[in-house]
Amino acid sequence: MIKKIALGVDIGGTNTVYGFIDKQGFIHDHEEIPTNGSLPVTDLLDRLHDAVIHYVGKNKMELTGIGIGAPNGNFLTGMIEDPPNLGWGSVDIIKLFKDRFQCDTFLTNDANAAALGEKYFGIAKEMDDFILITLGTGLGSGIFSGGKLVYGHNGLAGEMGHMSIDSRGRKCQCGSTGCLESYVSATGIKNTINQLIEKNPNDSFLKRINGPIIDGLLLDSEYDNGNPLAQKIYQFTGKKLGHGLAQAAALFNPEAFIFYGGFSNAGSRILDHAKQSMENLLLDNQKNSISLIRTGLQQGKAGILGAASLIWEY
Amino acid sequence: MIKKIALGVDIGGTNTVYGFIDKQGFIHDHEEIPTNGSLPVTDLLDRLHDAVIHYVGKNKMELTGIGIGAPNGNFLTGMIEDPPNLGWGSVDIIKLFKDRFQCDTFLTNDANAAALGEKYFGIAKEMDDFILITLGTGLGSGIFSGGKLVYGHNGLAGEMGHMSIDSRGRKCQCGSTGCLESYVSATGIKNTINQLIEKNPNDSFLKRINGPIIDGLLLDSEYDNGNPLAQKIYQFTGKKLGHGLAQAAALFNPEAFIFYGGFSNAGSRILDHAKQSMENLLLDNQKNSISLIRTGLQQGKAGILGAASLIWEY
Repeated sequence: MIKKIALGVDIGGTNTVYGFIDKQGFIHDHEEIPTNGSLPVTDLLDRLHDAVIHYVGKNKMELTGIGIGAPNGNFLTGMIEDPPNLGWGSVDIIKLFKDRFQCDTFLTNDANAAALGEKYFGIAKEMDDFILITLGTGLGSGIFSGGKLVYGHNGLAGEMGHMSIDSRGRKCQCGSTGCLESYVSATGIKNTINQLIEKNPNDSFLKRINGPIIDGLLLDSEYDNGNPLAQKIYQFTGKKLGHGLAQAAALFNPEAFIFYGGFSNAGSRILDHAKQSMENLLLDNQKNSISLIRTGLQQGKAGILGAASLIWEY
Repeated sequence: MIKKIALGVDIGGTNTVYGFIDKQGFIHDHEEIPTNGSLPVTDLLDRLHDAVIHYVGKNKMELTGIGIGAPNGNFLTGMIEDPPNLGWGSVDIIKLFKDRFQCDTFLTNDANAAALGEKYFGIAKEMDDFILITLGTGLGSGIFSGGKLVYGHNGLAGEMGHMSIDSRGRKCQCGSTGCLESYVSATGIKNTINQLIEKNPNDSFLKRINGPIIDGLLLDSEYDNGNPLAQKIYQFTGKKLGHGLAQAAALFNPEAFIFYGGFSNAGSRILDHAKQSMENLLLDNQKNSISLIRTGLQQGKAGILGAASLIWEY
C-alpha cells in the first residue's frame, strides 16, 4: 500500500530541515541541508525537490502536501516577506513550491509552526487556548484561541515579541520602544548584560559571559551557584517576561504558555520569576489558573512537525 | 404567520433595557426598567417575565431565545460573577432564565455583546478581525478573531482595560499596576485631572471639571477652544490609549478598533492622539493598516442588539 505522507519543511537562516511525516506525527525520516540564503531561492528549491522525489519514489510514498515554516512566512499571502538573514527579499514561496512539486503547499511562520506542532503532536493536544513562545535570538509567538491559530487580518498576528511593555523602555531594533523582545530573548539578555557591565566593569563573570553569543550553560550554572549578577539577569528577564504574559493573558485568557527554543532551556530559572511577576499583574479571576510549561517536542523537530500539520489541518 | 423573535436583555447597574429583535436586527420594541440591584435577582426576573410574555402574546410572536449582556457575564459558565453595583453576588442567570422562560438563553458580558452587535448589525459586518472597545466608567473590550468572538479558556478573555501598559504606572482599583483603564476611562481621566490639579491648584477650568462626574461636553468645548490643560488631558489619554492599541495589534493584527460608550463621543479629540501614538509603536508591516472608528450603532441599543445576536449566532 502506498503510504500518504506530508513533507514538513523548516527554513532557517543557516539550515533547512525537512522531514517525511504521517498523520500520526511519526517522522519517517528527516534531513538537514544548508539553506544557502545568499543564493537565489531556486537553489534551495532544486536541491529539496531532487532529494524529496528520490526519497518518496524509493519508499513508495505519496506526497499529500507540503507544509513550510519560515521566519516572516505569511499564511494568508503565501509570501516569505523580507526574511532576516536571507537575501531573498520577498518571495512567493507557495507558488514556487506548487509549480515544482505539483501538490498542496501551505506556509506559516516559525512560531506558528511550533504552535501547530504542540497542538497536533505535543503537549497542547487537549488545549484550545494557549500561547506558544519561542525564546531564541528574538521572541516569537503562535497563539491558539478557541482551537484555531490566530492569524489576524493580514496574517501578521502573534508578534508578542514586539508588544511594548514600557513606553519609556529600551529602544528595539524594530524602531519601537520597550518591546518584550528587547528584554526577553538572547538579544534582550545581551542588552541587560551590557547594562550590568556599565555598573560592574570589573566583574569577571560578566566579562566571561559577554561574548558574541551568550553562554547559556555558564549563565545557568552561575545562577545555580548563587552568583548575584546571574540571579539578577534571570530575575529581571523573568519579571519582564511575566509582564508580557499578564498582558497577553488579559486579552486571551489562555490555559497555558508553552516555551520553546534554545533559551527556554533555562527552565524554572526564568519561568519561576516570570510566574511570580505575571500573577501580580493578573486579574483575580485568572490568578493561579495559567500554566507556564516547556515544550513537549524535541528541539529542532517541532518546526517540521508543525509545518507538516498544516497539511493535516487544511 | 407567527413572527420569530429574540429577546435581547442588557442588564446595567442602574437600568435594564430589553428589546424584541428579529434576525435582521430590527428592534420591534424596546423598554427600559430599573434593575433594582439591591433586591434579589428574582425581582428583575419576575417583572421581565410578566412584561415579555404579555408583549409576545399580544403581538403573536414566538420567543426563539433570550440573549443577555451583563457586566461580568460569563458566556462559558452562564454565571454573572460578582457584578459591580449589583448586590447579587454570583448568580446562575442562565438557569434562572431557562427555568422561567423555557427557551434557549445565552449570556455574555456587556463589551462582548456590543462587539456582537457591531458584527451582526453594525459597522463590522464585513470584518473578521476587530476589537470593540467600550469607553465608559471603565474600559471594556470584545475581540473578534477569525470571525469568532474570543472567549478564552474560562470565558475571561477581552480584558483590555486590565492590560498593564506601565509596570511603574498608576495603581489600578483591581490591585494591579498601570492598567490601561486607569488612564483611559472616565475613572482614568479623573486620575489625570487630579494630577493636573496638584500642579495647577488654582486653575478655574480644572476646578469646574472636577465634579463627581466628568463634564464631557465642557472638556470637549475647552479642548476645541484651545485650552492647554484640556488639550493635555486628551493628548495624554490618547497617547496611553494608543500604547494599549499597539499592544493588542501586535497580538491580533486587527482590521479596526471600534469605539463605543459615552466617552467615545470625544471622537477625534482623543482618537487622533491615540492613532499617532499607536502608529509609533506598530511594526512596519502593520503601520497605516488599522482603522480607529466610532460605533455604527445607536448608543444604548448595541447592548440589546448584541445580546439578541447571541441567539442568531448559536
